[in-house]
Amino acid sequence: MKGFFITFEGIEGAGKTTQAKALSEELLKCNFPVVLTREPGGSPVGDKIRKILADPENDISPMTEFLLYAAARAEHADKLLRPYLEEGYVVISDRFMDSSVAYQAFARELPLSFVDEVNSEAAWEIFPDLTFYLDLTPEESVKRVKLRNEEMELLPERLEREKTVFFRKAREGYMHIRNNEPARFRLMDAMLPPEELHRKIVDSALKELRRRGIYPASGVNPETVGLNF
Amino acid sequence: MKGFFITFEGIEGAGKTTQAKALSEELLKCNFPVVLTREPGGSPVGDKIRKILADPENDISPMTEFLLYAAARAEHADKLLRPYLEEGYVVISDRFMDSSVAYQAFARELPLSFVDEVNSEAAWEIFPDLTFYLDLTPEESVKRVKLRNEEMELLPERLEREKTVFFRKAREGYMHIRNNEPARFRLMDAMLPPEELHRKIVDSALKELRRRGIYPASGVNPETVGLNF
Repeated sequence: MKGFFITFEGIEGAGKTTQAKALSEELLKCNFPVVLTREPGGSPVGDKIRKILADPENDISPMTEFLLYAAARAEHADKLLRPYLEEGYVVISDRFMDSSVAYQAFARELPLSFVDEVNSEAAWEIFPDLTFYLDLTPEESVKRVKLRNEEMELLPERLEREKTVFFRKAREGYMHIRNNEPARFRLMDAMLPPEELHRKIVDSALKELRRRGIYPASGVNPETVGLNF
Repeated sequence: MKGFFITFEGIEGAGKTTQAKALSEELLKCNFPVVLTREPGGSPVGDKIRKILADPENDISPMTEFLLYAAARAEHADKLLRPYLEEGYVVISDRFMDSSVAYQAFARELPLSFVDEVNSEAAWEIFPDLTFYLDLTPEESVKRVKLRNEEMELLPERLEREKTVFFRKAREGYMHIRNNEPARFRLMDAMLPPEELHRKIVDSALKELRRRGIYPASGVNPETVGLNF
């Protein structure tokens, strides 16, 4: 595929959403064709699945939870990621398949080989070209989420009710991916000031885009480019 | 597990819901502890997934559709099937994993080996002891569904909008299962008058229960027994 697929990963409160948005705005300024999306979501059916997964009223078995994330991923891959990547866009997703390895295989303890196989079928043949993993301690994660929910007067979502030990296991999952794929999976220190973290991410993304020979608005009309979430 | 698991299968309009209900009432009369359930559904989260799958407004990719059915199945197996089977109930389900072989592998043409593997993980170790497959031609199926929707003034659900060729492929899937497992997967002629079909199903179920040494209310308090859907 002609495009370039960047994903953001990390445990709750690491700053994925902020950094994904900031990177997409920066790349748009540089005249790259950019689509910003997220998982679960990125499609009408994916958004309905997201609602089931976020609702703290829902008591969901681990296998069900994993298959719901995978269903949302299959829809996302088929309806949004593939068409935009085929057209040559830079697609930036707030979470993708690595989240299921961290959360469902490591934290929920489902078999890793099964998670990998379903991930790969659900994503068709789409795989991230570059991943920014925003690393945070579980203690800091829990603290940040609590603060954010208090400030915004939000009730915690289903996953946000998990305890420190859950996020510790998820972080181990991310470290497992990093050990296997250090070139694709870039560990970034989520304790850095947001603006400094943003600069490092932009530098790293631009370097990788150049290395792959992807230049601003090559082959895509920059007029049609926009953010969609 | 101590219980006994009976499933009903067949294409739309074959009479699964009517026959599953009639069998459960008959077995209750005989003092068996019975639970009647269905897929997708049989759990609060499963019912929410069912709504997404039934809504004709939703355009759903085949892989997403399969993973949503599998997610509902995982929830059903973990929250309802396993606990009741462990307690010794006769559990009767309107559809189960064979539906995904017929509809998602054969009619939607997803890889059969992948469907089998996800089915087996989603159902944990639960497998039907006995399946009544109500066989109907695709032409008769489409005719019956149209008539039922007109009589009840219902809009067709998402699957009911499929054409004859779709149900022909699903029926081939059911025939594939029948060839592999003739003892478990009993073909019944869905063109028989409902009462005659019901008698044959009851005879067949009672014979199989006796053969396995399962007798009315053995080990379960018949007072606690009921229908739950």
